[in-house]
Amino acid sequence: MTGTLILGGGGMIGQKLAHRLGGDADLKLFDIGFPPDSPAMTNQTIGSLTNPAQIARLAATRPDVIYHLAAIVSGEAEQDFEKGWDINMMSMWHLLEALRQEHVASGGDYRPRIVFTSSIAVFGGPYPEQIEDVFLSAPQTSYGAQKATAELMLADFSRKGFVDGVSLRLPTICVRPGKPNKAASSFFSGIIREPLNGQEAILPVPDTVRHWHASPRAAVGFLIHAAGLDTARLEGRRALNLPGISCTVADQIEALRRAAGQEAVDRVKVQLDPDIMKIVEGWPRDFDPARALSLGFTAEQSFDEIISVYMEEDMPSGRD
Amino acid sequence: MTGTLILGGGGMIGQKLAHRLGGDADLKLFDIGFPPDSPAMTNQTIGSLTNPAQIARLAATRPDVIYHLAAIVSGEAEQDFEKGWDINMMSMWHLLEALRQEHVASGGDYRPRIVFTSSIAVFGGPYPEQIEDVFLSAPQTSYGAQKATAELMLADFSRKGFVDGVSLRLPTICVRPGKPNKAASSFFSGIIREPLNGQEAILPVPDTVRHWHASPRAAVGFLIHAAGLDTARLEGRRALNLPGISCTVADQIEALRRAAGQEAVDRVKVQLDPDIMKIVEGWPRDFDPARALSLGFTAEQSFDEIISVYMEEDMPSGRD
Repeated sequence: MTGTLILGGGGMIGQKLAHRLGGDADLKLFDIGFPPDSPAMTNQTIGSLTNPAQIARLAATRPDVIYHLAAIVSGEAEQDFEKGWDINMMSMWHLLEALRQEHVASGGDYRPRIVFTSSIAVFGGPYPEQIEDVFLSAPQTSYGAQKATAELMLADFSRKGFVDGVSLRLPTICVRPGKPNKAASSFFSGIIREPLNGQEAILPVPDTVRHWHASPRAAVGFLIHAAGLDTARLEGRRALNLPGISCTVADQIEALRRAAGQEAVDRVKVQLDPDIMKIVEGWPRDFDPARALSLGFTAEQSFDEIISVYMEEDMPSGRD
Repeated sequence: MTGTLILGGGGMIGQKLAHRLGGDADLKLFDIGFPPDSPAMTNQTIGSLTNPAQIARLAATRPDVIYHLAAIVSGEAEQDFEKGWDINMMSMWHLLEALRQEHVASGGDYRPRIVFTSSIAVFGGPYPEQIEDVFLSAPQTSYGAQKATAELMLADFSRKGFVDGVSLRLPTICVRPGKPNKAASSFFSGIIREPLNGQEAILPVPDTVRHWHASPRAAVGFLIHAAGLDTARLEGRRALNLPGISCTVADQIEALRRAAGQEAVDRVKVQLDPDIMKIVEGWPRDFDPARALSLGFTAEQSFDEIISVYMEEDMPSGRD
């Protein structure tokens, strides 16, 4: 039996992961809600990770692999301080405590793999040209602080052998399908997705902003690779900076031009937003993710490729 | 009014700080217990930081400066996982939440300075020759993970303006007066203190072990300097690596010989302890604490000076 639980299974990445893992007969999804086309309808549970009793019930099913993707996104965590810490930090604490109880109750046999989606928001400036694997985590948003805190908890529970965790500091995922969300990074997808679909998009930052991206397909690949990783190779450092593409917004827009012409580019309207600028200016721009590469994690080679992934997988007109 | 609260005021550093701040008429100490010669007897409160209601009562007194020194030490936190996380992490969370409530209730006026004693145990190997200020925190003990987590919380509550915190990553304090404690680092003091007082001391690690030290006097100096620091100069990075002395145990023993002769050195007995060796081998050996130095933090210049501080301040025969 290889039971798999996806916390945050109703979200964009959770759904893509669930579809990819479609062959797993014992796949369970947990979230506050699910889209209508969610797979594996019988294994969906609706609930909140703010409820420790609910978390204990999930832990009691003793899944072998737990993907923990549930989070309050960066913009919302910045606006709603309590909610952000509650979901992004305390729910990790309750989850780890519940799993430790199961570990103890099993006589030490039960020790699940946990794949946790952290974020490059654990970093804060000033930055070197490229961020190396030994660069400090000094977050400048509540979201980043919450993710960094959860990473530390997961690492210590893993070091003690209660669980076997990996934290993946995901690049900003782009191009996200569907509607904009409350993440401060939402526009990075919007300025590609909306123009490709004939709609206008707001660009709230100058086009000189440089950032670090990978596609949803690459993200799902990271998650599955992490679930199968030999964690002894992590040598106690269980948070990984992942591969991605470093490019400016201007580079993104040039790639959009190559994919869909000037007509698409003309749909991007600059409307600077000081709040978003402030958050995004503190974000990292480029990485040298040597450890993750040596551990076999792979992502796209260009932003053009990232746009192609969207057009192949998610663009409404490209679907049957 | 300049109300000052010392959490962990009954401990060794807390007591030295209280004596140094003796002129502060509104000094309050909080701890699970106090030594008989504790100063300011009328302002001592006995209680536990595991009790959120007690923490809320302390916060309601709205001290301007809070020194948060209370902790479960490294050896005990490694043995008692629950207690370590409860005291070293959760009590920081409850304290910050209680202070945020006071901040809100005051209409935003109340924003205390918090000086938190973190530790160089937030680091884990492999290390560079010298640890620079941008080196990652990847702790390899529960104590280190708990301190690193508390640092992140304090930084985010400070960034939001609820409190105004500084985390001090103290070197291993040496020479501690009194009896050995459960810290894995306790022997670093024991191998100096006991021989100076005519007693045998156990050295549980090879004398090639290199580590990073400052005296209790320097530690109190760090705390008071941090309480008066212009935190705008921290530029959002509120955890500081502090100055100290990098030396091997063999260097320590040579300094002991210079201070008290071969007779004292002969009282150090090697008796290797694999548990302590394992913890201590993961600890940092040397730092380049450029930021703290530029912010005016100072410590001893040699291990001989560290021994002198003990002989002047704490050695029983040196007291009247």
